[in-house]
Amino acid sequence: MESKLVKWGLKNEKEGCVSVTNRDLIKKISENLNKNDPRSIINLGNGDPTPFPSFKTTLVAEEALLNSLHSNSFNGYPHPYGVSIARRAVANHLSGDLPHKLSEDDVFITSGASQAIELLLTVLARPGANVLLPRPVFPLYKARAELVGLEVRQFDLLPHRDWEVDLDAVEAMADDGTIAMVVINPGYPTGNLFSLEHMQKIAETAQRKGIIVIADEVYRHIVFESQEFKPMGIFGSLTPILTVGSLSKRWLIPGWRVGWIAASDPNRLLSTSGIIESIQKYLCMTSSPATLIQGAIPEILERTPADFFDKIVVTLRESAEKCYRLTNEIPCITCPTKPQGCMFVMIKLNVAMLEGIVDELDFCCKLAKEESVILLPGDKNVLSLHILYERNISL
Amino acid sequence: MESKLVKWGLKNEKEGCVSVTNRDLIKKISENLNKNDPRSIINLGNGDPTPFPSFKTTLVAEEALLNSLHSNSFNGYPHPYGVSIARRAVANHLSGDLPHKLSEDDVFITSGASQAIELLLTVLARPGANVLLPRPVFPLYKARAELVGLEVRQFDLLPHRDWEVDLDAVEAMADDGTIAMVVINPGYPTGNLFSLEHMQKIAETAQRKGIIVIADEVYRHIVFESQEFKPMGIFGSLTPILTVGSLSKRWLIPGWRVGWIAASDPNRLLSTSGIIESIQKYLCMTSSPATLIQGAIPEILERTPADFFDKIVVTLRESAEKCYRLTNEIPCITCPTKPQGCMFVMIKLNVAMLEGIVDELDFCCKLAKEESVILLPGDKNVLSLHILYERNISL
Repeated sequence: MESKLVKWGLKNEKEGCVSVTNRDLIKKISENLNKNDPRSIINLGNGDPTPFPSFKTTLVAEEALLNSLHSNSFNGYPHPYGVSIARRAVANHLSGDLPHKLSEDDVFITSGASQAIELLLTVLARPGANVLLPRPVFPLYKARAELVGLEVRQFDLLPHRDWEVDLDAVEAMADDGTIAMVVINPGYPTGNLFSLEHMQKIAETAQRKGIIVIADEVYRHIVFESQEFKPMGIFGSLTPILTVGSLSKRWLIPGWRVGWIAASDPNRLLSTSGIIESIQKYLCMTSSPATLIQGAIPEILERTPADFFDKIVVTLRESAEKCYRLTNEIPCITCPTKPQGCMFVMIKLNVAMLEGIVDELDFCCKLAKEESVILLPGDKNVLSLHILYERNISL
Repeated sequence: MESKLVKWGLKNEKEGCVSVTNRDLIKKISENLNKNDPRSIINLGNGDPTPFPSFKTTLVAEEALLNSLHSNSFNGYPHPYGVSIARRAVANHLSGDLPHKLSEDDVFITSGASQAIELLLTVLARPGANVLLPRPVFPLYKARAELVGLEVRQFDLLPHRDWEVDLDAVEAMADDGTIAMVVINPGYPTGNLFSLEHMQKIAETAQRKGIIVIADEVYRHIVFESQEFKPMGIFGSLTPILTVGSLSKRWLIPGWRVGWIAASDPNRLLSTSGIIESIQKYLCMTSSPATLIQGAIPEILERTPADFFDKIVVTLRESAEKCYRLTNEIPCITCPTKPQGCMFVMIKLNVAMLEGIVDELDFCCKLAKEESVILLPGDKNVLSLHILYERNISL
């Protein structure tokens, strides 16, 4: 028995090529924590605002969940595409910012944005296909693409141009096998916000190359400057836009696991090509988010007061400014761009100035050990750290 | 753009070989429903007891969820392997029936049993590998195995021997590439219960062939006769047992999406071979079930009174008996074995006696159209229907 099993497990081909995710990194870095340190651990790595006292969800969400529970209508299996009233509520919610209104049929409810990413990359994978991802990127995109054998090509985000997409690179690397490009806006982990002009250029490039845009807008409307957030779906008439969103960040309930995919595609290219049908087919063979929580979505989306969001944005903006100022006072780290949105910031680590530090992962492991603070190392070519802002934390 | 997209979608290689799931079947059959029929639809296909008034969850579950919500401790991302108190509670809950007690580390919380199935088949897949599935089988096993390129071989369950596994067939078809066999007990969709002797023979066969047993015990303890339910994990010292379970059926909350994988493996073969590590790695790259609901698991498992389960089993037994008696009074269908557990029964359809009916799918489509009743067609070689029992429904 044993001799046979030894062949299996981590040493197989698949594992050899699957990237680490943030969860892997946090696990690895956490192993360095000093258990005898009396200070409580400050985890600035996992993008979860809920442990911090300034970030508590709205009473509306709690009441909506109670109503869903007491209705006794949401204990059964959900429709695989999502509960109908939830799909309609998300469609209405997103349509406010869009020229082409979405209907219930354009929306699929997923278990957080993570399952949306998992689903899209699985549905788009096939031999010879490739997907274009930004660098730096949310690592789950890379890991899931590799798992399903979808070739990953990465274009740079340009730090000296407010982390805009290197569109020349996209133009050069997209070929007949390219099915989609991913953009994350507001930017994770870069903390930037694309201008409407830049978004249009992205859509025009995608249209020219005949590729879909996967627009990760998990941090939608979490922006600090006067410039407003605009969704990529605005440009759906140029090329099909598959928007990934969730309640996690904006409503501060990542543990409720509610996300969605919304198709902005007035020319119905995704339907005629069978991609919508593939999404539906995959949803029939995967686990849905809890019906009980889906039942709360309409109330959450429709009843949350504007001042709930305003307060969060003010807190984040103050933290972002503090973070930007203070990191630039520390000799070995610099923050190239003042954050414009999202809940993260990228800082550049000057390893040459640090004694006994090999690279950014080594830095994070030692920081965890010595200071009980968890940060995340970024992509290797960027030498960066991601930091969740928090009013009560000073660097 | 369009010409490129047309290559994508359902016509790709992958879709060509992926089986239909129950969800696909229900969707297809439902399309035949007559919208002008004033009678309400009776859906006996999707294994969801919650629409029926006799099957309402316990107040304990509702209170547990309220406590989780009001604690404000379960809004953040969960640990990828599951919330610690939930893993411990499941380990304790299962250990009562096992000779080797489980610890928190042996349990992983999943989004229903569906995600457990998805995870195990993905982790065990690799080029040249195969998995042995029963026939008839819960179709998700087949669809997920095919999606990840894991070859499926099927052994028969023998209707004339109370749906026992054809162990000679298992012995003959297991080879060097076989990594695991799946058994579902109490049996879905067969409604049987294995004897302890038969379970031991299954484990001994698996041990001889050097394969893991995936024991789907989603209907655990839902048994009607004097014979008690015993978990496959009892035989974990013979060969590693990966048990799949959930709260869905026994607690009547399938829409809460709580399932688990439990490893009964006192010889730690799954750890030394790296399979546990692969499971952990996969959990780091997929979406977890809602933390909020995981927070309710300990109370649900520890506080639900025995009479809640007893009442459900009595209702199901009465329905099963009625179903068995009445189906055998109808000329064109027969029920070969009186159900011993689970929530389903298999009935044999004699197509030769039916005018204008091609096969079991055709029968189900026409039944939906004419009577607004949804049944599920079984595997093609068995010509069967699955029926969810309900006190208030007579055939």
